[in-house]
Amino acid sequence: MPLLVMKFGGTSVADLDRIKNVAQKVKREVERGYDVIVIVSAMSGKTNELVGWVESTSPLYDAREYDAVVSSGENITAGLMALTLQEMDVPARSWQGWQVPINTTSAHASARFSSIPTENLNAKFAEGFKVAVVAGFQGVSPEGRITTLGRGGSDTTAVAFAAAFGAERCDIFTDVDGIYTTDPRITSRARKLDRIAFEEMLELASLGAKVLQTRSVELAMRYKVPLRVLSSFEDTDENSGTLLCDEDEIMESKVVSGVAYSRDEAKVTLVTVEDSPGIAAAIFGPLSEAGVNVDMIVQNISEKADVGPVTDMTFSCPTNQVARARKAMEDAKAAGTIRYEDLSIDSDVAKVSVVGIGMRSHAGVAAIMFKALSKENINIKVISTSEIKISVLIDRKYMELAVQALHDAFELDKAG
Amino acid sequence: MPLLVMKFGGTSVADLDRIKNVAQKVKREVERGYDVIVIVSAMSGKTNELVGWVESTSPLYDAREYDAVVSSGENITAGLMALTLQEMDVPARSWQGWQVPINTTSAHASARFSSIPTENLNAKFAEGFKVAVVAGFQGVSPEGRITTLGRGGSDTTAVAFAAAFGAERCDIFTDVDGIYTTDPRITSRARKLDRIAFEEMLELASLGAKVLQTRSVELAMRYKVPLRVLSSFEDTDENSGTLLCDEDEIMESKVVSGVAYSRDEAKVTLVTVEDSPGIAAAIFGPLSEAGVNVDMIVQNISEKADVGPVTDMTFSCPTNQVARARKAMEDAKAAGTIRYEDLSIDSDVAKVSVVGIGMRSHAGVAAIMFKALSKENINIKVISTSEIKISVLIDRKYMELAVQALHDAFELDKAG
Repeated sequence: MPLLVMKFGGTSVADLDRIKNVAQKVKREVERGYDVIVIVSAMSGKTNELVGWVESTSPLYDAREYDAVVSSGENITAGLMALTLQEMDVPARSWQGWQVPINTTSAHASARFSSIPTENLNAKFAEGFKVAVVAGFQGVSPEGRITTLGRGGSDTTAVAFAAAFGAERCDIFTDVDGIYTTDPRITSRARKLDRIAFEEMLELASLGAKVLQTRSVELAMRYKVPLRVLSSFEDTDENSGTLLCDEDEIMESKVVSGVAYSRDEAKVTLVTVEDSPGIAAAIFGPLSEAGVNVDMIVQNISEKADVGPVTDMTFSCPTNQVARARKAMEDAKAAGTIRYEDLSIDSDVAKVSVVGIGMRSHAGVAAIMFKALSKENINIKVISTSEIKISVLIDRKYMELAVQALHDAFELDKAG
Repeated sequence: MPLLVMKFGGTSVADLDRIKNVAQKVKREVERGYDVIVIVSAMSGKTNELVGWVESTSPLYDAREYDAVVSSGENITAGLMALTLQEMDVPARSWQGWQVPINTTSAHASARFSSIPTENLNAKFAEGFKVAVVAGFQGVSPEGRITTLGRGGSDTTAVAFAAAFGAERCDIFTDVDGIYTTDPRITSRARKLDRIAFEEMLELASLGAKVLQTRSVELAMRYKVPLRVLSSFEDTDENSGTLLCDEDEIMESKVVSGVAYSRDEAKVTLVTVEDSPGIAAAIFGPLSEAGVNVDMIVQNISEKADVGPVTDMTFSCPTNQVARARKAMEDAKAAGTIRYEDLSIDSDVAKVSVVGIGMRSHAGVAAIMFKALSKENINIKVISTSEIKISVLIDRKYMELAVQALHDAFELDKAG
């Protein structure tokens, strides 16, 4: 029997009516001949309520107890979903993490899967059950305690089940109808993509992170699980939503698939750093220890007559980490581990990126990008490139304009 | 290490402040040198919410899914209680039913204990944990599915743990401060009992049922678990509340311990029933099948010249079952399995009982009772006696008066 995994997030199961609505989608797949594993989140708001109780009780909580409390939300939805399907004459039962069992590491509140044995569920499918409703986001540790995977873990649960059971596809139902070429709030010309490669999705995190947890995309990519994002609030068929897949399966000929952005970036430059072997480690070691998430890094070497080789070292980080970054650099200077003349900070920048697997085989993408920005008189402050992405830092006030200009320049409103 | 079981009901753990309040009581026992097993209910209102969802989803629900959903309430409280104790520097962890494991039958929604292995909890106590917080009301079936014990099951969980672990005592914290000689709403002279025998408590169900589930009292009696009822909202010490214990341990010399009542009773009389062997079975079989809970039964044999031996058969049942009782009797008459002249129904009666283990060795209790009622001009309609109880049916309007008169007649306001 072919098997599908269908995952419903919190807003999709927010109340009994919505549970009934999405159960209809499950029933339709059963009628098409599929066995279905349904992964459910907690009803919208429930997890926050439980987390709130834990944090009020114990600010530095024992993560094992946090997991025991917070996992309840998914258990409730799983039972209610199984009952709803039974009412529709679909043979279904619920499974809590320890019943499957979903074996994970003991890293409570951020556990990782170690194994998902298929025997128990398959035995029930063999008995004639058509649907296994599994509580997402949770598992059981080697010590027999309940674990959770961290926020958004239900997506990862879904992909892991699809991989373990060799599912034909993993459908992630959510409150948007797919992945767009860019944020539709920034340009109305944003277009929903029918397909996107896993690698592109990872680079488009700023567009996709609200839709799909990065870890689930990585897992789907590793196990080549076709992953589909679609709306639980619309009628859907086998062509709905956006399919994330291996790049071999992408037919679209677009060089660029999407334009991503990140609003709250800061640019930090260490001016005239004395260059020497190990200088990068001397700078970024303390930043990492201070909890600064460094994103782009750019370095220019020059020669200065009196001190020898010097460099300007520029990096970007989230705006709210600038104070920490400054302190780490000043401390390092005071300790004598790095020497620089000045620390220049620009907290009013944004990052705009174009992403596409087609870049690998197409030259000239950077030229089109820079020309489009130049035409709008947008000054580029930092450039960074990877195999399938080109990112620039620009003044924040130009961010929307830049996204619109790039979306037009690469004709993303037109299907490939 | 001596061990205590402490059980907190829903109102005692209704919010985070109350959980903190009762955790203080646990800490105090730990400081006195006890290991403690804490049994918790769901936060007040939670179970009703979950039951409501299940019933709305599926009126004829699968009890296995009901149990999976409804048991979540206790799991949440258990985790929060463990966190609260940890915040007070008391080494504690939570246990869900399947983790202990609390082995039960597969009778979902009304499961019974089959075994409670002590190894897992004792291993943790040996490691230095002082408190095991156990989710009440639940267990796990031989098939590995979650079971619940039915409403009020947390009391029974507490007693079962006390028996399994050989606890010194089982303390049931609730919203009243003990068991009273009668309902204090009926007479202000009602007095809290320091001790009461298990048997008396069972007969005083109408006073005690709001406080303690009957099944838990039966279990405590069987395993001779000293069971104490006390308030979670007051400062309590080792003399607080009421201790339920074996009658050997009762020092009080009172013949009567309490006056119980039941307001909504009906009296049904089959007038001039033709008596023959098996007539009782012919009457009470159909009543039982119709779901009528018959309480008192009284029969008077007489001789009637034309038909041979005849009897008037009287029984009592809850008022809301009268219609069912009438139909069952009329059907049986129509079917010819019983013959009677008339069916007389009095729906305006109440039952008043005096209870006391001292009756076993003291004569004259009935005489005092009847005299006290007679003095108030209260007519007795039916009398029924057991070894430690005398019950009468009277007109409902005299119920409060009767309770007050009997309470005075047996001087229950005075300590024994």
